[in-house]
Amino acid sequence: MTTVTTGTIYGVGVGPGDPDLMSLRADRLIRSARHVAYFRKRGQLGRARTIVEGLLHPDVNEIPMDYPVTIEIPVDDPEYADALSGFYAAVSAQLADLARTGADIVVLCEGDPFFYGSFMHLHARLKDHVPVVTVPAITGMSAAWTATDVPITWGEDVLTVLTGTMPEAALAQAMAGADALVVMKVGRNLPKVRKALAEAGKLERGWLVEYASMAEQRVVRLIEDETSRAPYFSIVLVHGQGRRP
Amino acid sequence: MTTVTTGTIYGVGVGPGDPDLMSLRADRLIRSARHVAYFRKRGQLGRARTIVEGLLHPDVNEIPMDYPVTIEIPVDDPEYADALSGFYAAVSAQLADLARTGADIVVLCEGDPFFYGSFMHLHARLKDHVPVVTVPAITGMSAAWTATDVPITWGEDVLTVLTGTMPEAALAQAMAGADALVVMKVGRNLPKVRKALAEAGKLERGWLVEYASMAEQRVVRLIEDETSRAPYFSIVLVHGQGRRP
Repeated sequence: MTTVTTGTIYGVGVGPGDPDLMSLRADRLIRSARHVAYFRKRGQLGRARTIVEGLLHPDVNEIPMDYPVTIEIPVDDPEYADALSGFYAAVSAQLADLARTGADIVVLCEGDPFFYGSFMHLHARLKDHVPVVTVPAITGMSAAWTATDVPITWGEDVLTVLTGTMPEAALAQAMAGADALVVMKVGRNLPKVRKALAEAGKLERGWLVEYASMAEQRVVRLIEDETSRAPYFSIVLVHGQGRRP
Repeated sequence: MTTVTTGTIYGVGVGPGDPDLMSLRADRLIRSARHVAYFRKRGQLGRARTIVEGLLHPDVNEIPMDYPVTIEIPVDDPEYADALSGFYAAVSAQLADLARTGADIVVLCEGDPFFYGSFMHLHARLKDHVPVVTVPAITGMSAAWTATDVPITWGEDVLTVLTGTMPEAALAQAMAGADALVVMKVGRNLPKVRKALAEAGKLERGWLVEYASMAEQRVVRLIEDETSRAPYFSIVLVHGQGRRP
């Protein structure tokens, strides 16, 4: 009789984009993995997979997971939730079946897996059934504020992290009360984010960082730039101005 | 005539504590550095220096920077600011002088250097005079939410980051309006943080993570624990409960 030990599914944060900013643990897990899964928009390589280009084992089995929808359906449409829910259930089952053959699997995650990451939807479905280990990583926002060469929080600054998909009024209200702030998922929401920041009286202090830490990195002050649509990997931020001895 | 090129001062984030979570860049810079500076409380080795134990070059010149005060004087006392200001000016001058001899210097930073880090006070004083490069890192809060094995932010969750040194009323107010929240610098402020969380109606959802990612790591729900004083490296967090397909 042969007993197969269930493999482990590793949700590995690859960090903000520069492979040199991956953790030692992530680098080791990714280089040695024989099964590597990653999300992507159909027809594209996917950012996480792009980051690890050249690092994968020669005998690796790649498992692309193609989102069924991205921006074709509004996120608050029930059809969007249904499509994604079925998708996450299916790929979770696929990975669990593979793990039960004894295979360890690395799931590549942009940024930090537990911070607005798609891996969270697999983790929720897998953790009670197979071993799942999450490896944290440098967030896109850390790379973004580092790219501005200005610290984000001083002393007792409160940091507020928002998503560009929020309604304008909610954005403006949260922005007004924040010391330091970060807006994730900016992309085509940039005009709305810009207006909300102006309503909150903070447009002059706002920065836009595109592709933080990547070759295409671009850092501009919002008032010096007319861009109306930013790449998906864009972050808007306002630095705190707290106590500094 | 000999021309000396000024060296670079690297503010290198060593991450949350586990050396395996350092970035490849940090690891390489730290192992090859001939001059390594770090903050510490007088008489202690210092957490950042502890994290890199065993990694430093055999010929390294260590430059400990002893805080003149830590918790002996309240942070809002002008004497506290004066003492720290003079200290940061003195060590900045010392590092700048060394850099002008052509030496590259690594300054070790716990967590991410630009996120509530002491290095920021050197960066502000040095950046207009000598080359300064900042290397981002995994934050203590990323390690903390990973340690709970529960994602911190879903969908459009707003994340609010607070410091335990804030007044109780301000803490409670910010906590009430947050979806997901993180409290840094908990330490001896734990009873206050706990009370503020109860006032905000979120004590049942609160977690305490001590020494995230380190050997001494401890993860508890606040309602299942009577601890009244936590180590300095403690984080309280409440997970978001946003949209999840």
